[in-house]
Amino acid sequence: MQYTIHAITHNKWDNSLQPVLKVSDGDVITLETKEASDGQVTPSSSVQDLLKLDFSRIHPLTGPIEVIGAEPGDALEVEFLDFRNKGWGWTGVLPGFGFLADEQYTSPIDVLGPALKIWKADDKYAYAKFGDLEVSVPLHPFPGVIGVALPQRGRFSTIPPRENGGNMDIKHLTIGTKLYLPVFVNGALLSVGDTHLAQGDGEVCGTAIEGPMEVTIKIRLLKNVGLSQPVFITKRVKEMEFNEYIAFPGIDRDLWIASKKAVRGIISILSKYMTPVEAYMLASTVVNLRVSEVVDVPNWIVTAYLPKDVLGRDIQLV
Amino acid sequence: MQYTIHAITHNKWDNSLQPVLKVSDGDVITLETKEASDGQVTPSSSVQDLLKLDFSRIHPLTGPIEVIGAEPGDALEVEFLDFRNKGWGWTGVLPGFGFLADEQYTSPIDVLGPALKIWKADDKYAYAKFGDLEVSVPLHPFPGVIGVALPQRGRFSTIPPRENGGNMDIKHLTIGTKLYLPVFVNGALLSVGDTHLAQGDGEVCGTAIEGPMEVTIKIRLLKNVGLSQPVFITKRVKEMEFNEYIAFPGIDRDLWIASKKAVRGIISILSKYMTPVEAYMLASTVVNLRVSEVVDVPNWIVTAYLPKDVLGRDIQLV
Repeated sequence: MQYTIHAITHNKWDNSLQPVLKVSDGDVITLETKEASDGQVTPSSSVQDLLKLDFSRIHPLTGPIEVIGAEPGDALEVEFLDFRNKGWGWTGVLPGFGFLADEQYTSPIDVLGPALKIWKADDKYAYAKFGDLEVSVPLHPFPGVIGVALPQRGRFSTIPPRENGGNMDIKHLTIGTKLYLPVFVNGALLSVGDTHLAQGDGEVCGTAIEGPMEVTIKIRLLKNVGLSQPVFITKRVKEMEFNEYIAFPGIDRDLWIASKKAVRGIISILSKYMTPVEAYMLASTVVNLRVSEVVDVPNWIVTAYLPKDVLGRDIQLV
Repeated sequence: MQYTIHAITHNKWDNSLQPVLKVSDGDVITLETKEASDGQVTPSSSVQDLLKLDFSRIHPLTGPIEVIGAEPGDALEVEFLDFRNKGWGWTGVLPGFGFLADEQYTSPIDVLGPALKIWKADDKYAYAKFGDLEVSVPLHPFPGVIGVALPQRGRFSTIPPRENGGNMDIKHLTIGTKLYLPVFVNGALLSVGDTHLAQGDGEVCGTAIEGPMEVTIKIRLLKNVGLSQPVFITKRVKEMEFNEYIAFPGIDRDLWIASKKAVRGIISILSKYMTPVEAYMLASTVVNLRVSEVVDVPNWIVTAYLPKDVLGRDIQLV
């Protein structure tokens, strides 16, 4: 069967919620998603609107969807078939949030925010100006949040990812990917939201290119497979999607600090061409963080990869 | 000018070493490298030979090469032009070494080692059998160690990477990449070694596909650029693009533990088809670790990506 559902949303994980739709193994569903702020940010928003955000409304999730016959111990296969954006997206920095939030007051690079970037989008790219650069980012749309109900009773924040999936923010959960989620309650109760037009590994400023969408997925029910957490198969997501990268290795005895050094290195390079907080937002949407090595005692390396292709023109590295 | 040098090696960072070659801005050098064990592992070695390794001989580096006119504050551009392997490589697990070494005695997955895998190689792939699988890994050869002399006097271990580069083990330092290294002493004193035929992000078992090579690089001297650590530009490397990945997200409050969960997840999947320690070695050579998100408080995600293409046949995920 094929189903279409509008954005009937909730924003807590709660296994007592009534399903908004019931589907069976093999069904295809097109579901509308709101963007992460639940309509508080619009294409005409300014940074002042960002400061007024009501956080209790973050992460409206479409669902839950009951999968008939799903029982604890089973798994859902969610295949991503299509994403349609609404022509726009946003990226924001909020004081106190994001990977560099705790050093915003001490770093020589000011990425404090608040800051807001509104992107225009077609079905291939998102477009925005950063400093003098006309940036165009190839889309790989995906849901920042996708998960099933938790086994525990209660209402749980959508912010941390968990064994049920949830706010995983994994950029490769896009067309051509099959995600496997364990089932913890009868009916599984799948919910989807926080759709992103594109994002770098890390989502360092705390937001991607956020936007409402129509998402088409196919559901399969796998009986009694004993999966304990999410796992996925992804096709044709090229390791190196772009033609050329500027890469900055962060070297440290702590992976967290190594990651910060790598992100700050890229921000520092970009800051010759835009404000540091713009560079931070751009990094969140296109820069990939890879763990280069975890064995060369005592210094580990996380390398940040900035695709030059998105920048509209050449920039100088050194 | 074009130069060729044989593997005249040292294995400490020591800025008092006499150069084995002097080159100028624009020169091209073909240098022979030994593999990481300095000849202690050969194509006919067994795991027993691995247990007898003399660690004081690890990381023989070809060099140092003086770059005429290089002074502190300058930078070297090292462009990787060509790598020729010698038809073989090795991957090993030594008790007490590697990313999972400290949990080898507590984990239900036994990756204790010792274990040794000898690969055959041509100019495109490395080949070895893992369990029943005929594995072929596309090559992206690079030097695990490349760096310049440190500013401090003394003899320093080659194991940790530092601001001079060194044992960075970054898989993208391959053909088409330009690496920029800061200069700390007159002449720069560049050394190269620990060549790898291929490696996954992370190099989790502590060794890649290790092998001797001939490496051709072009040196440029950039005056007075004030670089403080390595940075590089890398172009699309088609050999590293696979059609399909199995991906396992490691979710934890600590990036280090998240990385371990991701690697263990992949080892667990592979262990249906080979021994766990073989899976650990295969992960070290082909699995990539990417930092999916560092902002979804308090749970971060590092995802491990296993390319299915290298496995020779299809395997089951769930």
